[in-house]
Amino acid sequence: MIHPTALVASGARLGRDVRIGPFSIVHANVELGDRCEIGSHCEIGHPTARAEGRPLVLGPGALIRSHSVFYEGSTFGPGLVTGHQVTVREGTIAGERLQIGTLGDVQGTCRIGNHVRFHSNVQVNHRTTIGDFVWLFPHVVLANDPHPPSELLQGVTLEDFVAVAAMSLVLPGITVKRGALVGAHSTVTRDVEPDTVVVGSPARVLGPTQAIRLRDGSGRPAYPWRRHFSRGYPDDLVRAWLDEFGAGRIDDPLLD
Amino acid sequence: MIHPTALVASGARLGRDVRIGPFSIVHANVELGDRCEIGSHCEIGHPTARAEGRPLVLGPGALIRSHSVFYEGSTFGPGLVTGHQVTVREGTIAGERLQIGTLGDVQGTCRIGNHVRFHSNVQVNHRTTIGDFVWLFPHVVLANDPHPPSELLQGVTLEDFVAVAAMSLVLPGITVKRGALVGAHSTVTRDVEPDTVVVGSPARVLGPTQAIRLRDGSGRPAYPWRRHFSRGYPDDLVRAWLDEFGAGRIDDPLLD
Amino acid sequence: MIHPTALVASGARLGRDVRIGPFSIVHANVELGDRCEIGSHCEIGHPTARAEGRPLVLGPGALIRSHSVFYEGSTFGPGLVTGHQVTVREGTIAGERLQIGTLGDVQGTCRIGNHVRFHSNVQVNHRTTIGDFVWLFPHVVLANDPHPPSELLQGVTLEDFVAVAAMSLVLPGITVKRGALVGAHSTVTRDVEPDTVVVGSPARVLGPTQAIRLRDGSGRPAYPWRRHFSRGYPDDLVRAWLDEFGAGRIDDPLLD
Repeated sequence: MIHPTALVASGARLGRDVRIGPFSIVHANVELGDRCEIGSHCEIGHPTARAEGRPLVLGPGALIRSHSVFYEGSTFGPGLVTGHQVTVREGTIAGERLQIGTLGDVQGTCRIGNHVRFHSNVQVNHRTTIGDFVWLFPHVVLANDPHPPSELLQGVTLEDFVAVAAMSLVLPGITVKRGALVGAHSTVTRDVEPDTVVVGSPARVLGPTQAIRLRDGSGRPAYPWRRHFSRGYPDDLVRAWLDEFGAGRIDDPLLD
Repeated sequence: MIHPTALVASGARLGRDVRIGPFSIVHANVELGDRCEIGSHCEIGHPTARAEGRPLVLGPGALIRSHSVFYEGSTFGPGLVTGHQVTVREGTIAGERLQIGTLGDVQGTCRIGNHVRFHSNVQVNHRTTIGDFVWLFPHVVLANDPHPPSELLQGVTLEDFVAVAAMSLVLPGITVKRGALVGAHSTVTRDVEPDTVVVGSPARVLGPTQAIRLRDGSGRPAYPWRRHFSRGYPDDLVRAWLDEFGAGRIDDPLLD
Repeated sequence: MIHPTALVASGARLGRDVRIGPFSIVHANVELGDRCEIGSHCEIGHPTARAEGRPLVLGPGALIRSHSVFYEGSTFGPGLVTGHQVTVREGTIAGERLQIGTLGDVQGTCRIGNHVRFHSNVQVNHRTTIGDFVWLFPHVVLANDPHPPSELLQGVTLEDFVAVAAMSLVLPGITVKRGALVGAHSTVTRDVEPDTVVVGSPARVLGPTQAIRLRDGSGRPAYPWRRHFSRGYPDDLVRAWLDEFGAGRIDDPLLD
């Protein structure tokens, strides 16, 4: 399961059925859970003094696609999945089933909850705090320096179920509250209230997320998205979401 | 022509004079036309169940630069050229002489015409349809989900000779019609009429593309760009463009 | 110090204590100064006819992180540092201590001064001119074609101490003058006067940079940033900045 060209340090702790692709490097200060799979041309557990000796820990079932770099000093829950050419620096603590799309750049010292999904080319800066079920779409940047360059880093906070659409920027120190939606190509300069849509540069309030309708002819609300979208989430979660919203259990082909 | 460190599966079908660089991987379900060149550290024909067994086919003369990843299940006409660190997923069908710049991210299930050129760090999402002679400039994103996340994917359509300038976003389901120009750092929220310039967020109509003049002191129209720009296109095409626009055959140093 | 899997051409000129990581390639037409360190999976000195035989020269102490590609035909002063997955084309001449963040894309034929720092995913196009102490923050693009596509390339000029905040685009031919600040997610369509803040799309003048205060409760001006920010700069420079601004020598914990 370990390709003969891969370089795996003798100190690395590998679970059962771990796979390491061609031309990949696994450093010593790494713990890979059972069934982890590392693609080709990766560097896992890149040493850094800033990690202060803490290991890189990937929970069971991680899939790291090719050309990705993970530093030592971060911890990921079960089921991490990445795209290609991803970079993750030290000091990140993430829950279960995080997805980081191709070209993702996680600068480290972040807290990330469970079931969070980043699409391609997202940049998450130091001191970012992300709740559960958050979505970041392509080319989103979460900034952290209010008057660059400075030593005063103020991370962004995204609460549970926040979605930030493509090419949007959230400014340093901003909190986007539970269930809020940031429209595409926006600049978020003020805190966003729960279940609220904002859009533009600077982003302005459009109204409640519930007012957005699915463009599938059904007239159903598009938010909260867990009413209609469940791809890739565990069955028990999806069942709880169905219960939360009562109806739709039978009608909704997406949940069959 | 195949570097001794490269890993080429015995099932891969390689044309004449194919070159494979150091530390690159070519999987079995791949057809490389004559004179294809794969740079270093690439992975070509990455397996995926979604390809349903379809091969990756690269027409003759392809040049894939280093650190790029192509999945199985896509087909490219002759003369494909990519930059470095490009990712192309399954289900893409592209014509001849496609160029994908460095860090390009083509998510797959796209249709792309002939002579299309993507500059660096372009993201083309699922279900995008691109005509012939289309240009995408740096950091352009073509979105596909009108209310993310959802299962209702609506790809962007870019007709022949469309140009989308740097850092612009085209929203899901939008059609940009033949010869239209999207100005830099715009958000296209409505369909764009042929040979029309739009700019801003949301993008507004500025006027016809023909009103834009070359800033070279000549006073000539900058669009259609094939009046004055022909770098890298085949001679017969350039001759046809000269015929189309009558004059200029002698005056235009760019075409000499 | 050269990993046994690395491929180093016999013609390459390597200084003392040079380190080359696993699976990296160093071509012949390369000069690496003393103590240069090349990470894993890099390609250094990629051949190109456009370099016309000029070598790639990296001054002493360069640190090139993994998966990066440098073409032949560029010259960097001492102390170059890059992130991962960086691409630098031929014809770039840069001073000392340039930093290029992860995913940086330097297209070549640029002039870059001393102590310049690019954050992640910056794109610097052909014919850009950058002074000393310039900062580019994440996802900044410096464009060069006023009516794309065309043959009339007009590079951007950024004078000393300019800072361009995240996700901003500077249009072709624009000059941003000494000490000016481009706010986040802006589009710079006109020249910017010295020590002036601009923001928006198109960017409008907000006022003098000196009016921006540090958000640390001190009430001190945030600009010029060398009043309060000195991380990573040489001691003699920092001392000169302290002298320039007189007070603060004792109070400022950042400079201790």
